Amino acid sequence: MTESNTDIEISRRRLLGTVGAAGATGLALGATGGALVQSAIAATPSGGTGSLSAVGAARVAFHGERQAGITTPLQAKGHVLAFDLAPGAGRKEAAALMRRWSETARRLMAGETAATADTGIALDAGPCSLTVTFGFGHSFFERTGLTARRPAALDPLPDFSSDRLDPQRSNGDLWVQIGADDGLVAFHALRAIQKDAGDAARVRWQMDGFNRSPGATASPMTSRNLMGQVDGTNNPKPSEADFEKRIFVPAAGPGPAEHAWMGGGSYAVVRRIRMLLDEWDKQSLAQQEQVIGRNKATGAPLTGGSETTALDLDKIGPDGKAVIPANAHARISAPAQNGGAAMLRRPFSFHDGTAEDGAPDAGLLFICWQADPLRGFVPVQRKLDRGDALSAFIRHESSGLYAVPPGPRDGEYVGQRLLEG
Amino acid sequence: MTESNTDIEISRRRLLGTVGAAGATGLALGATGGALVQSAIAATPSGGTGSLSAVGAARVAFHGERQAGITTPLQAKGHVLAFDLAPGAGRKEAAALMRRWSETARRLMAGETAATADTGIALDAGPCSLTVTFGFGHSFFERTGLTARRPAALDPLPDFSSDRLDPQRSNGDLWVQIGADDGLVAFHALRAIQKDAGDAARVRWQMDGFNRSPGATASPMTSRNLMGQVDGTNNPKPSEADFEKRIFVPAAGPGPAEHAWMGGGSYAVVRRIRMLLDEWDKQSLAQQEQVIGRNKATGAPLTGGSETTALDLDKIGPDGKAVIPANAHARISAPAQNGGAAMLRRPFSFHDGTAEDGAPDAGLLFICWQADPLRGFVPVQRKLDRGDALSAFIRHESSGLYAVPPGPRDGEYVGQRLLEG
Repeated sequence: MTESNTDIEISRRRLLGTVGAAGATGLALGATGGALVQSAIAATPSGGTGSLSAVGAARVAFHGERQAGITTPLQAKGHVLAFDLAPGAGRKEAAALMRRWSETARRLMAGETAATADTGIALDAGPCSLTVTFGFGHSFFERTGLTARRPAALDPLPDFSSDRLDPQRSNGDLWVQIGADDGLVAFHALRAIQKDAGDAARVRWQMDGFNRSPGATASPMTSRNLMGQVDGTNNPKPSEADFEKRIFVPAAGPGPAEHAWMGGGSYAVVRRIRMLLDEWDKQSLAQQEQVIGRNKATGAPLTGGSETTALDLDKIGPDGKAVIPANAHARISAPAQNGGAAMLRRPFSFHDGTAEDGAPDAGLLFICWQADPLRGFVPVQRKLDRGDALSAFIRHESSGLYAVPPGPRDGEYVGQRLLEG
Repeated sequence: MTESNTDIEISRRRLLGTVGAAGATGLALGATGGALVQSAIAATPSGGTGSLSAVGAARVAFHGERQAGITTPLQAKGHVLAFDLAPGAGRKEAAALMRRWSETARRLMAGETAATADTGIALDAGPCSLTVTFGFGHSFFERTGLTARRPAALDPLPDFSSDRLDPQRSNGDLWVQIGADDGLVAFHALRAIQKDAGDAARVRWQMDGFNRSPGATASPMTSRNLMGQVDGTNNPKPSEADFEKRIFVPAAGPGPAEHAWMGGGSYAVVRRIRMLLDEWDKQSLAQQEQVIGRNKATGAPLTGGSETTALDLDKIGPDGKAVIPANAHARISAPAQNGGAAMLRRPFSFHDGTAEDGAPDAGLLFICWQADPLRGFVPVQRKLDRGDALSAFIRHESSGLYAVPPGPRDGEYVGQRLLEG
């Protein structure tokens, strides 16, 4: 064993080996100038004797005004999947399924085992920021006889000329998003959700994704995608005055009463966007920055400043041309260019090995959230579809739109206000 | 935004937002009873201004007696792939490739960018325990005219009756194992290694895997696999007297001089073992424990004790039968039952979505290390192949055996003693 490997092993043990019983605090001091970690976090019900690190113990509440997994910080691992109700299953079966799923989500997000026949995959791990988020697709409402309660916001998205959509991996009656900072915790939840489906629903499609691990970067910097680009800079911030209004359906809005069950909910657009990475990587750094309109390393606009500096869309360079090209992705997608359209993008990267064409089957599981897709995703994508320089390097391969109800109150299951309202 | 989501965001920012310039220490105190993390780790060359957490900054040395990625603790993400030399490429091209790959591995493991046209995917992240490990398959030696230096230990493994091997996903001239505690850092390395291959070699197969994230569990407990079983309990420990002898080829052993280039190296057996999880999950907990011979939750033998307690193979239960059944996986694979055969298992789990049969295409990327496969993997697998109760629930789908040379000295590249010796 090399010296360096020993160092790693020691520092990891130090990180994990926090001390004491539930609730007690412990201090593990390093002798080699490495990390020192102190943790005061109680072991979770499924945990063993020791204490968990901050990553392991981090827990997101199942109940609340919003479902978890929308404003929750990006997690390291994700499973995104859609189900179709089985032939013969209707509103009653759907309600029972949502009740089962909600109970499983509640338990697992608390770090508990599933109610019956837990697979054990997450035993001795903490909840690791697990979230399970549920949504309903357009077709769900026919299957359950609830078309009168289907909001217009769930109408199918318009066609975009650059779309190359696979219907088998698009849409679906029910949508589930699982995220966690540990791969085994996420997979455990995936298996439990699939098992709960029983005879009521069948998996229509399923995708896996990932993001940075907690602690991998020095600062809470915006994430990068597999093109190496800083991604998510222009995301609306919860601190902004109109954040709630843009991302969540008003609790008592002007809409018809039959859509009130969506008050506090949000709409998710989910797209598998394959990146043509071999082509992208052939471009020089300067070419890539012209396509995006930003400095690759820092994410700053080509017109200067830092990642969060506003784009100077009118700035002309010494060659007499706009510094941020007319077809640059950052220009076309800028909220200022889209009537203030805003969506909260919360994606995962994906990598499914090598595609048939020999290039990596990799890209972005694009997930964006908004109170109204016609004011969020659609106007931006319409512009990108026509003139985005980036479109030569990406391919939209699937698409789904889902109504994601508000978070459940204590004792409630997700979607209860729709299914029993 | 729900209260709990805010808590998570704060505690994550606290975890990441360690303070001060390189080398300085900072203390971030939590007000909500969450984690407190103090870090004294300098930012790496590719990092930004802040400091990295222990997870991000953890760095494994490229140079050394052994290659990294053998005794390095399990990492959260892995890419395992094999290349074949391109038609016409021989010893000279292979040497140039190993020199390129070694330089890339050295730089990336230090948290630096690739030497040319870095993709930027890992910018602002630390090395995150990245390791890149290289090996040579049986066919490499014909392609490079080096059959005289091919050790007998690299002779093809015997056939096992339960094998269902796909030759397209087996073997290969060159083998690369990438591991890191961050998915983007690992993918960055994968892309750089693939690009370095240039015209000299083509990807033969590629697989992705994962393990627990650092901090997900309370204790440095042995990992679990996707069946929920504690996995790796009987692994030899570096502290054991014969660890080196069992896992690594002696530096100056009794073998022929033409194999001296492998002194300090090890042999890796790599198998994609699909788990038939739907079938497994139908078994009761008691049935599963009979198959394995251990308590599922604790990993302790059915004969009692804790995870590390030795199996009492002679113990008879009240029913007059052996408490650990004759075909239990733990009995058959026990070193005591295999003439002390020992291998260091260092796997990744895999999950490639849903297979054609509708069940999860998931399982274990089994990777084991030994000084001699005929004394490590082969005798154990021969016994498992015949009588392991677990074999009804798994399927070996691919197999590879690779000679993994010792770690490079300063200025050396991996395999130089073979290719230029």
